[in-house]
Formats: sequence, structure tokens, C-alpha cells
Amino acid sequence: MSFQNPVFIPGPTNIPESLRKACDMPTIDHRSALFGDILHPARAGVQQVLKSKDAEVFIFPSTGTGGWETAITNTLSPGDKVLVARNGMFSHRWIDMCLRHGLDLTIVETPWGEGISAKRYGEILERDSGHEIKAVLATHNETATGVTSDIGAIRTAMDAAGHPAMLFVDGVSSIGSMDFRMDEWGVDVAVTGSQKGFMLPAGLAIVGFSEKAMEATKSARLHRTFFDVHDMLKGYANSAYPYTPSVGLMNGLKVSCDMLLDEGLEAVFARHTRIAKGVRAAVQAWGLTLCAKTPEVYSDTVSAISTPDGFNATDIVTHAADAYGMAFGVGLGEVAGKVFRIGHLGSLTDAMAISGLGVAEMCMVDLGLDIELGSGVAAAQDVWRKRPALAEKDAA
Amino acid sequence: MSFQNPVFIPGPTNIPESLRKACDMPTIDHRSALFGDILHPARAGVQQVLKSKDAEVFIFPSTGTGGWETAITNTLSPGDKVLVARNGMFSHRWIDMCLRHGLDLTIVETPWGEGISAKRYGEILERDSGHEIKAVLATHNETATGVTSDIGAIRTAMDAAGHPAMLFVDGVSSIGSMDFRMDEWGVDVAVTGSQKGFMLPAGLAIVGFSEKAMEATKSARLHRTFFDVHDMLKGYANSAYPYTPSVGLMNGLKVSCDMLLDEGLEAVFARHTRIAKGVRAAVQAWGLTLCAKTPEVYSDTVSAISTPDGFNATDIVTHAADAYGMAFGVGLGEVAGKVFRIGHLGSLTDAMAISGLGVAEMCMVDLGLDIELGSGVAAAQDVWRKRPALAEKDAA
Amino acid sequence: MSFQNPVFIPGPTNIPESLRKACDMPTIDHRSALFGDILHPARAGVQQVLKSKDAEVFIFPSTGTGGWETAITNTLSPGDKVLVARNGMFSHRWIDMCLRHGLDLTIVETPWGEGISAKRYGEILERDSGHEIKAVLATHNETATGVTSDIGAIRTAMDAAGHPAMLFVDGVSSIGSMDFRMDEWGVDVAVTGSQKGFMLPAGLAIVGFSEKAMEATKSARLHRTFFDVHDMLKGYANSAYPYTPSVGLMNGLKVSCDMLLDEGLEAVFARHTRIAKGVRAAVQAWGLTLCAKTPEVYSDTVSAISTPDGFNATDIVTHAADAYGMAFGVGLGEVAGKVFRIGHLGSLTDAMAISGLGVAEMCMVDLGLDIELGSGVAAAQDVWRKRPALAEKDAA
Amino acid sequence: MSFQNPVFIPGPTNIPESLRKACDMPTIDHRSALFGDILHPARAGVQQVLKSKDAEVFIFPSTGTGGWETAITNTLSPGDKVLVARNGMFSHRWIDMCLRHGLDLTIVETPWGEGISAKRYGEILERDSGHEIKAVLATHNETATGVTSDIGAIRTAMDAAGHPAMLFVDGVSSIGSMDFRMDEWGVDVAVTGSQKGFMLPAGLAIVGFSEKAMEATKSARLHRTFFDVHDMLKGYANSAYPYTPSVGLMNGLKVSCDMLLDEGLEAVFARHTRIAKGVRAAVQAWGLTLCAKTPEVYSDTVSAISTPDGFNATDIVTHAADAYGMAFGVGLGEVAGKVFRIGHLGSLTDAMAISGLGVAEMCMVDLGLDIELGSGVAAAQDVWRKRPALAEKDAA
Repeated sequence: MSFQNPVFIPGPTNIPESLRKACDMPTIDHRSALFGDILHPARAGVQQVLKSKDAEVFIFPSTGTGGWETAITNTLSPGDKVLVARNGMFSHRWIDMCLRHGLDLTIVETPWGEGISAKRYGEILERDSGHEIKAVLATHNETATGVTSDIGAIRTAMDAAGHPAMLFVDGVSSIGSMDFRMDEWGVDVAVTGSQKGFMLPAGLAIVGFSEKAMEATKSARLHRTFFDVHDMLKGYANSAYPYTPSVGLMNGLKVSCDMLLDEGLEAVFARHTRIAKGVRAAVQAWGLTLCAKTPEVYSDTVSAISTPDGFNATDIVTHAADAYGMAFGVGLGEVAGKVFRIGHLGSLTDAMAISGLGVAEMCMVDLGLDIELGSGVAAAQDVWRKRPALAEKDAA
Repeated sequence: MSFQNPVFIPGPTNIPESLRKACDMPTIDHRSALFGDILHPARAGVQQVLKSKDAEVFIFPSTGTGGWETAITNTLSPGDKVLVARNGMFSHRWIDMCLRHGLDLTIVETPWGEGISAKRYGEILERDSGHEIKAVLATHNETATGVTSDIGAIRTAMDAAGHPAMLFVDGVSSIGSMDFRMDEWGVDVAVTGSQKGFMLPAGLAIVGFSEKAMEATKSARLHRTFFDVHDMLKGYANSAYPYTPSVGLMNGLKVSCDMLLDEGLEAVFARHTRIAKGVRAAVQAWGLTLCAKTPEVYSDTVSAISTPDGFNATDIVTHAADAYGMAFGVGLGEVAGKVFRIGHLGSLTDAMAISGLGVAEMCMVDLGLDIELGSGVAAAQDVWRKRPALAEKDAA
Repeated sequence: MSFQNPVFIPGPTNIPESLRKACDMPTIDHRSALFGDILHPARAGVQQVLKSKDAEVFIFPSTGTGGWETAITNTLSPGDKVLVARNGMFSHRWIDMCLRHGLDLTIVETPWGEGISAKRYGEILERDSGHEIKAVLATHNETATGVTSDIGAIRTAMDAAGHPAMLFVDGVSSIGSMDFRMDEWGVDVAVTGSQKGFMLPAGLAIVGFSEKAMEATKSARLHRTFFDVHDMLKGYANSAYPYTPSVGLMNGLKVSCDMLLDEGLEAVFARHTRIAKGVRAAVQAWGLTLCAKTPEVYSDTVSAISTPDGFNATDIVTHAADAYGMAFGVGLGEVAGKVFRIGHLGSLTDAMAISGLGVAEMCMVDLGLDIELGSGVAAAQDVWRKRPALAEKDAA
Repeated sequence: MSFQNPVFIPGPTNIPESLRKACDMPTIDHRSALFGDILHPARAGVQQVLKSKDAEVFIFPSTGTGGWETAITNTLSPGDKVLVARNGMFSHRWIDMCLRHGLDLTIVETPWGEGISAKRYGEILERDSGHEIKAVLATHNETATGVTSDIGAIRTAMDAAGHPAMLFVDGVSSIGSMDFRMDEWGVDVAVTGSQKGFMLPAGLAIVGFSEKAMEATKSARLHRTFFDVHDMLKGYANSAYPYTPSVGLMNGLKVSCDMLLDEGLEAVFARHTRIAKGVRAAVQAWGLTLCAKTPEVYSDTVSAISTPDGFNATDIVTHAADAYGMAFGVGLGEVAGKVFRIGHLGSLTDAMAISGLGVAEMCMVDLGLDIELGSGVAAAQDVWRKRPALAEKDAA
């Protein structure tokens, strides 16, 4: 395994040089003013990335999973009713967490490869005339299947049903790479981590709470201490933390937000779409299909690629690591062995993406799949190439 | 604030060059064999530092506070009885966490500056003939007061009472710097973080569970997901994690354990004792006293120094930061304004320690305290200096 | 320009992570024993890479050009006769240096794209019956044209002529990547730099002197101080330098030698040959030709690729930088605008090389060349791919 | 030897964190526009540090010694007459270089510990009525003795004699730390390196040429290629180099100039004076004397401290390294064994300086010198401390 090859796991992503250096900090006094100069810009930057004006942003030394736990333990009480869809490994895990915390779940079982049905959510909410459902959970981008669900449509369905439940969104593999509109979509808790769109090492749970979610914390009776948002808020008021913060990582987050906002969020999203289109063109050229069933749910951060029946897709991942020192993602849960995944989020250039596709097709050919070498690369190149000569000719 | 001065907060400590580099890793696939080469040696190294043959070591992307939550949520159920002493800010916070999780506490209020009374613990345990107390909590080293408690004595008292409660020890500011004997002392859960004796950035909760503690997890009914040790164990069996691990920090932990074990644990402890003796000699030369009331509880990792009545000790910390770019620790809780703290744990040389004492005495003189410049330094120098000339003469 | 793309200039090369860290050193006392622990292993490592038992290795804070100046100023006197071939930009520059130092040159003008004619050298040396020629100069690998000359053949020709001249070899873009046999080939001065086969930043001239070359230093009258090898030797005897050494870079050199020797020199050479073959297969698939005229002079570290008449090859380099953030080499001197160069030396993986070829072909298509996207990549993939499935079938 | 202690050798200095990171760059194409963004600001920054409006600044991958060679080989011809003073090891070495290059020297032998006599220079220049002396050499700060000479006075003497010789100044251990006025003093060639006032690793010779010096290059006949300033100028015109530049170090130089200019040159000089005064107060408190004979030549970047007769001053340096992991400078040449040196240039805080003095006095006491522990530290503390309390009282 070479440290010089880019990684194509769907997070943690490749870390840009400047973020490597921002994280690699000597020790400072986290109770001094120096820390405030990291904390406050980092929180403000995340707010902008979430497209929220007022969300309270919390940054825990943890991971996205800790972000989920923050969401539910601060806003809900044992026995509270929650609506959730299961359409992949990460929604499955969030469901498991809710069950362990004694919540009462209505689970919309959804085929892996499909998005969350806003219509189905709407029907259930309409039937809940007593408004017993306290929270609606949605995974914006299922990292396991490469499926993006329409959060705006869920908000529309909730509003149509006139239902006051909170909306919690797992944006771990979307936020910072895909459009995410916390305020416009009425998201009450948005959850992500440092190691995806923010292009940092893992180690931070990043969570945004709406005013409504903050209000809910007052009556929530699930136990919490490490993930307590009020302890955090008290700390933040003093430019501090209730315990020792991950200063270097937070400095990285501050710089990461600057990078994303300097490039422009829409430009960042467009870049991800462009790279994703090239990868999907390659998949088509290989004669393969995506796990994601329809174009409107194709993810711009990760592609889960189905391999032919009888072929173990995980072999591609193992062989890529062993023979070429390159990391792809294996299939998880229901689609284990059936798909392999190419992560294309974070800081990825055309050149890096070509190396991923090139190695993927070498692996598939090595393992006997009927793929033409160079075919996927060529299809992607055609999407990615810039045509200055033509452009200039046109201009002439 | 200069990045070139050492810090003298009682953690996070100064990070050795080699650990800075070990943590600053490019992204690897945390589901590949590469990660196992970090995970397993890190866990084995921690075990040795804990002086335990069989403890299950868990490493969470979190902090010591998360370690406490790991300890209680995995082993206890709502309403369980717990015995605990409050003799400083960190024991106070652990008590607060227990209360929030619905535990039933017997609190031994202890003056700040004193150690935990093993005798008092023993009496209470003896009276608990029904063995309703499930866990005994002890903070090995109170970072707020610079007080080390005798954990071995607590074990002896527990055994004398024939009480089967588990013993949970907060070793956050002791483990890796002071002697800690998990097996010999019968510690059931040992808790620490990455940023103290392990000399790393904050971001890891490091926890050891005895066989008895692991047994207790089977019936424990407090909610847990992020901090669930069984999810972790399942992950470890596959050289993996239930979520994304902090790979760079864990690589740092692996290298840190190697450093500590290469130097030799007893040598590491002796080095801390030696540095601490010099600091205490300086305090005496200044005519000041420690918050810690008696020599047997003097901490070898942090000294909390009492300033005269009417003087705000926090001014020293503020002035040191503003005028000399140096970080000391403020007094916390009950002793806020009454003490300032010099952390002397982690990787500290005589030369670095001299700079800390030298700046401390400049600050005190600047602020009008009746201290002689150079006096504390001279006293410490006399403790720290090596006498090769004399040694050679003696040899001759 | 993205820092995340590999570079494909023919040096400086991509720097492996471990060498980045080895070079990034805090200040040490270069007059202390610590420095000896860097200096001596670095010199010994270079000796092994040169395949020499006894060569005196000198390491100057300089570049390959400084290495040339070291070679001539330490061994020659004004007016000395020197035999040299010009077959590219780097031999041209060495000739220029010799002229500026008042040497009397016999220049064998050689078409760019051809190797040095050992036969022609032999004829000239045979005619020099008075042995007035003091030194024979040869550029092992012409970085400008991608041409490797046969140094062994030159030695054979020198011996056949019974000529006692010294043999000086510029191995800047060969040593550490291609086979170089200082002792077997009777090389008297071997010159290289840190930024090619050693995979380090530029900043070191690395030079090996044979016993005969050292003998020649005694009577050499060209002026020298900074590049004086005897000042160096005196320094080395005390584990020191005549001035301040580049400690971090030298530490990098020590670690680089360890890396090369751990992989095994023959394995390193085979790796370069393998990568080079793939690149050449791509060139062929594109329907283009190399500047190097015949297969026996094809360089394994750099390919200079000729573009069709009327096309400015430099546009590829400019467009690659502007549109794809990737660096290739331009044509230099006689072949400026006629070739572009792909460097494939140092630490390069298949995956990285694919990204270079992929971008090169996007550029060529963008600029209107009649190249099929993916064609070069496919040809290279076929050379580079590993066939475990087949291998296992064969084994079965 | 600990990497965590500051070094007190008189260069290379301690490297600030931000410069460590600026130097640690991935490979870029040094023929691309990216390099111009480093080269031009670095040259412009050096110009400002030299206090020159028009000097041509040259940056070689070399050291200060290479800078000397640049100065003489580009401006002089064999047999040229040169006036120079010898008052320490570095002037001695420059003299040696001139002799090796066949220059005709008039040497003003000056006791080590004294500054250059401008009067003596004036007398000699006045006697040289034929203006045969082409260049006057002066070492601004003798690093070996801690003696600063008055360059302004030398210029005054030259002007008074109406002598047209060029003035070459070795500012290796002064430029960037002490006031240096290239234009005002009429310096024709100023020489320094990266590892002193610029606080970088060694590896760059940094040289400024006046218009007059540039004019002299036209007729200079000493051999040069690596150090040829016209090759450099041609490169610079294309944002390039005649060979491969040390890109990372040059990026460090750019950032270093920014740091110095942001702080303000006069503030930087005042900081060095302040630290130096504290060190000198310590020397006095120890009852020792400086090698520098009179206060007007005391250096603000290095103090050479004389030890009592019969005591080997080098033992202090050896013992400091062995027992305390701290690096001081040994005595060189005439004063070897008679002095040890404390470097106090570059990025040094009060706190760091205290650690140096504290270790020095431990060493002296360890080795049997009659020094009081803490005495030097106390004297320096009194110079360095800031008196906010008093200041506030005064204000009240």
C-alpha cells in the first residue's frame, strides 16, 4: 500500500496539503484566547456550509455516529416515536442506535438502491393525527449504496401533512460536497463528520441544531453528558470546551471551511457533479450498472457499482489493495460482495480520478471480468477534458 | 503566544517531534490490513502501560470524559449504587455525569487538597453488607489540586471489607507518567486520554476493562451506542472499528507506547518524580505552598501552587500568556483564583522546566509578589543538575 | 496547480511521505555527534547505490551542476584536455562549464536522440598517443532527450585504447533509478543530485571520487573553495563540515538510501524499467515516437516524446498545467517545441503513472492531435497489470 | 539530545513552526508560474531586509561560504588586490578563500575580540593612491568572537580616502537580526545564508550586489559557473533558475521575509538587543567576561564567553549536550577551549533564553566553576521582565 496513491474509499477522503498542515499543530492552551480564534470561525464556517443563518453548531471530538447520538439524546425521551427509513447500512445503523436508546420506531423498509420515499413519509405523518411522532430521520446520502435522497421533498411532505415533528438529517457523506440547505429544507438537526466533505482526518462530529431542536433539548430525558449540547454552549460562551477539544482538527475545520467558501459552495458542488458524471460514464463503458436504481438518486460523492452475478465484488477491493496499493470501498450489509464502491468526494482532481478508474479496470480484467482496458478511462476523459482548442476556434 | 515556548498546562502536554509526525498521516483505508498494524500494537502497548496482562483496551475517538461515560454506561444500570469521593474538579465532574445517568451516589466529600480516604471508603463498604454498591470510583490524580490518591490502599480497603464492587479509576493525568498497576490494584475500569501521559493531541479516550468489568457489561442497562464496548470488540476482531477511527492519532498512540516502553516505565516515572521534585523545591524557595496538603499526596504530574490571600492567582496565568507567551493552568472550581498550576507531565526536559519556573517567577515579581528572581530556578537547578565532575572524582 | 497531483517532470520527483518527514527536521547542532549519525550512514548509503566499495562520497549543499564543478575543479588545471560528447542540453551545459574554466575540449557532436558513441571516443583516445587527454566526460542519461548512453562500453573503449584518462560521468538522472556500476565501469567521478533517483528536494550535489580521482586532486590547479573535496574530507574526519551542512536534506538522503537498499537496487531498477515500458507502450499506441532514436538508448527515467511537425509540443505542457494542474517537462534547446517529456523516475506507482498518461492524452486531444482517448492508458495498463487470476489458474 | 530543547548555537537557529511548514513543500514544477510566485517575493523581501532599493539579490542553493565565493569570483580577476581584516575564524576563512583564488591580499591582523579598525583601513586606502585595491572585505559580525564591526565607519573611512574600491560585507550572522544598511553604507556585495537571521535550515547563500558590483562582473576573470550571477539573472528574467532551485527553502525565505517585515525590522533588531542584554547581564552575574573586548563591539546575535584560565570551555558544550541535551557553540580557532558561545539570534523568546542560561550555569557548576546557581538567570530576568503592575500603579 503506497501512501502516494490517492484513496477512493467513500471517506475519509484524500487530505489536501494545506489541511494536513492546519491539523498538525503544536499544543496551545485550549483555555486561552488562541483557542477562541479557532473555535468561533470554525463554527461560523460550518454554519455557512450548512446554509443556515442561525443554527447552533456543535463540534465534538467524536465521529458522525457520535453526531447521531448527539441528535437523539439531546432532543428525545425514552419511548418517543420516531419515523425513519432503512435503505442502506448507515440508515440501518442509526435505526439500531435509536432502538438501543429505547425509542419507538416506525421503520419504512426501502429497497437498498432506492431513495427515501417522501410520499410514504407523508402518508405516515398524515395518519399520525395526534402528532406523536417527535422526529423524522433521513439519511441524505446513503454511503453504502451511493443513493441520494431528496430532503427538500421530505420537508414538503411534512409540511403538506401539517406535522410538527423535527427533521433530523444524516449528511455525513453529503455536507460540504453536495448542496445542503438546512434552513430552506427546515432541517432541525444536521449531522456530519470531519472526514468527508471537510476533507479532514476523522475525529470530529459536526452537528447543527435549529432553534426548534434547541427548544426540544429542554424536555429531552435521554441520558447524555459527553454529547450534551448545553455543556457545549456554556463552554463556547467562554471560548472554551467542557473538556479538552481536538484543537488541531478544529483548526483544520476552520481552514477547510475557508477553502470551501473561497472556492464557492456552488463551485464545489459542481466539481463533485462533474467528477461523478465521469465515473458514471466509466461504469457505463464497462457495461456495468450502479446499485442506485435511477438517475435521480445517483450520488455525486460515491458510486456503488454492481458486478455480475457469481462474481465477488470484494475481490476487486482486495486485489486493488494487494496488487496496486489502491483503496476502494467494499459492499456493506445487504450488498456485501455484490458491489464495490468508488468514493469521489473531497479534494479530487481529474488526474487522481483517472488513476482510480484505471486501476479499477486493471483489477476487473485481472480478475476475469469482460471489461476492455482503457474503456472506462476514455469515457471519463471525454466528460472531464477541457477543450481550449475548440473553444478558441469557436471564439475565432 | 509563541508556538516555540513549551506549555505548562497540565495537559495537553508538549508533543514530541516524533509523535507530531506519527499523527500527521495521509489517509489510509481503515478497513484494510494497514489499520490492523496500528490498532493491535496500540492496544497491546496500552495494556503494558496499564501494567495489565488481560485488560480489554478500548480506544474511542473522544476524550477522558468519554472514557468515564464508557466506564459507567457499559457496566451499570439506572439506579445502581456507586461510591465516590469528591476532592477536586475532575471527581466533581465525574459525579455530575453519574447523577445525570440516574445512578445513586454515596459521595465522600473531601477537602480539596486532600487525597481520597481509603479508610472512609472501607467503612462505607463494610456497612454495605448487602453489597448494593456496584462500583467504587476514584480519581487517581486530581489535576485540579495536584493531589495523587493511593489506589492500592483503596483496593486493600475493598478487600478488607470483602466487598465485590468494581473499582473504576480515572487515571487521566496519571497513566503513562505515574505508576499505575491495573492488575495488582484490581482496577476494573481504568480511564485516560491521549493528551497527557501519552503526549499526544487530545482526541482519544483510552479505557481498560477487567474481566469482571466485561462480565458486568452483559447486564448493564444504561443506554450506549457510540461508547459501546461490544461493538468495539466486534470491530477489533476484524481489525476494524464500528465507525471511522482516528487513524493518525492511533498511530501516534502506537508510537507513544513504544517510546514509553523503550525508555522503560520505571524510568519514565522516575523522570516525572525528578522534575516534580525540582518544581516543588522552587515553590518552597518562593516561600509558597502547594494546594496539596501533605507530601504523600504531592502529584508528580502537576503542581497547584497557592498564592497569598488577596492575590488573584489567575493573574499569573493571564500575565504569563500576555507578556511572555507562556501557558500555565488556572485554578478551577473551589480553588479558582487561589492557585495557579504548573503541569510537568509528558515529555519535559530540565531545560524546558527551567523556562517555566523562570517565567513563573518573573510573572510573580511583575505582579508584586515578594519573590526573589532566580530563587526558584536555583532551587530546581540544584535538584536537577548532574554532577559529572564530582562523580568522576568519587570514582577516582 | 494542485499539490495533490503527482508531477511528471523528469525531476525533482514526487517525494515519498517518509522522505518529506525525514527532511523536515528541527535544528540540531551540526557539530555534535548527532550529525555524525546522519553524515556517515548517508555517505555509506550513497556508496552502495553507486555500487562502489571505496569511492569517496561528497555531499555538497548545491545541485548536480555544483557536482560537475566539483568534478572538474578538484581534478583538472587550466588548459587541460578533456574529451566530451554533446548529445543534449545537459551535456551541452557541462561543456559550457568546462569552457568557462579554461579547459581544452574535444567535443564529439552527436545528434540529439542518439547515445554517446563509445567507438568514436575510442578512436579519439587511440589517436591521443601522448595521453594528453586528462578526462573523458559522459552524460549517462540525457534528461533532455530521454537517451541513456552505455558507460560500460565507454570504459571498454578506453581500456582498448590503453588510455589513462579519468572517466567522469553525469549520473544525475540515472543514479538511484538505473543500474550504475561505478567500480565495474571504472568511473572516476560520478555526479548526481538529491532530487532525482534519491527522491528528495533539490539542494544536494552528491559526488563519488575514485582513488585515481582523489590522486588527481593533488596536482589540480583550478580554483576551488566551496567545492573543495579536501576541506570536506577534513570535516568528515570530525563528523563535521567545512561550513554549515543541510542537515535535514542529508537526513533525507540517509533514509532514501535505506529505502532503495531495502527494496533492493535491482528491484528498484526493474520497477523503473517496468513503468518506462508502459509509458513507451502508450507512446506507441498514440502513434507517436520518442526523441530517442533506437530502443537500446531508451531511457527508463524519462521519455521525450516527439509531436507531429507544425505542432508546438510545449502547448501540451502549458495546457496540462493550466487545465489539469499537472506538470510535464518541456523540450529544451534543440528540441524545444518538438518534444514534451514525461518523467517516470523516483517513487512512482502504476496508479500515478496512469494519471499522467491519462492527462497527457486529454491534453493532446484537447489541442487537436489525432489521438484516441484511453488508447495510451490501455496500452500501459496491459503492461502494468498483474494477473493473479491467471497465475492462480496456472498454479491449479 | 532532545529535539524539544531550543538550540543555542550561533546558527542554524531555532526554526519557527510556520517556517518549518513553509519549507516542507511537495514538489512543484520549478519551470512553472508557481515558482515565480516564490522567487520574486523572496528576492524583493531580501532587498527590504538589506535596506536596499536596487540591489540585485541572488539566492543560490549553497551556504554563506558559497556567498563569499559568489562575491569574489563574479567581481575580481586573478591577482586583484583586496584589503581585509582578520579578527576571527570567519574572516580568516574568507581570507583563505581569497588566497586560493589567487587574489593579492593586504591583511590587517586584528586581535580576536576586537572589531575591524576603520582608521587602519582608511590609512591603507589613502596610501593606495593608484587605487589598485579593488575590494575591501569586512565581516560585520564575527560569529567566532561575538564581535560586531562598524560598517558605516568603514564606509566613512573609504569615502574620506576618496577610494573607489568595492565594499564586500559578510553579514552572515547579522543580516535579519541586526541593523544592516546596504544602500546607506554603500555596501557593494552583502553576503548571508538562510540559517541565521532568516531562521531557516541551512542551504541557501543569499547575496546582494550593488550596481557597481554588477558593473564589475563584466570584466571579472575568475572562473565561475555554479555561482555565476549572470546565469542567475537570465533565469530570473524567466522566473526560473539555471539549474534546479531549492524550492521549499526559497518558499521558507519568502515567508521569513514576510515575518521579519511584519514584525518590523527595527522591532526585530530591538528584540535581539533586548535578549542580548539579558545574556550579557547573566555573564556579568557569573563573574565572567566576554571575548569581545569593549561594549561597542558586543554582538547582539552571539556572545562568546571567556572561562577562567586552566578551564576547558569546550567541556561546558560537551557536558550540556550529554547531560542536558542542549547545544551551545564551542570556541573556534584561536579561542578554542577559551570560550563557549551562546547564540541568541533568530526566533528566541525570553522563556527559551532562560532555559539556555539556566542550563549553562548548571553545567558550569557541575564542572566546578565558582558560579552561583540561578545568578545569571536572575540577572537576565531582571532585564527581560515586563512590569505591568508597576506600570499600572504609575498610571493610577
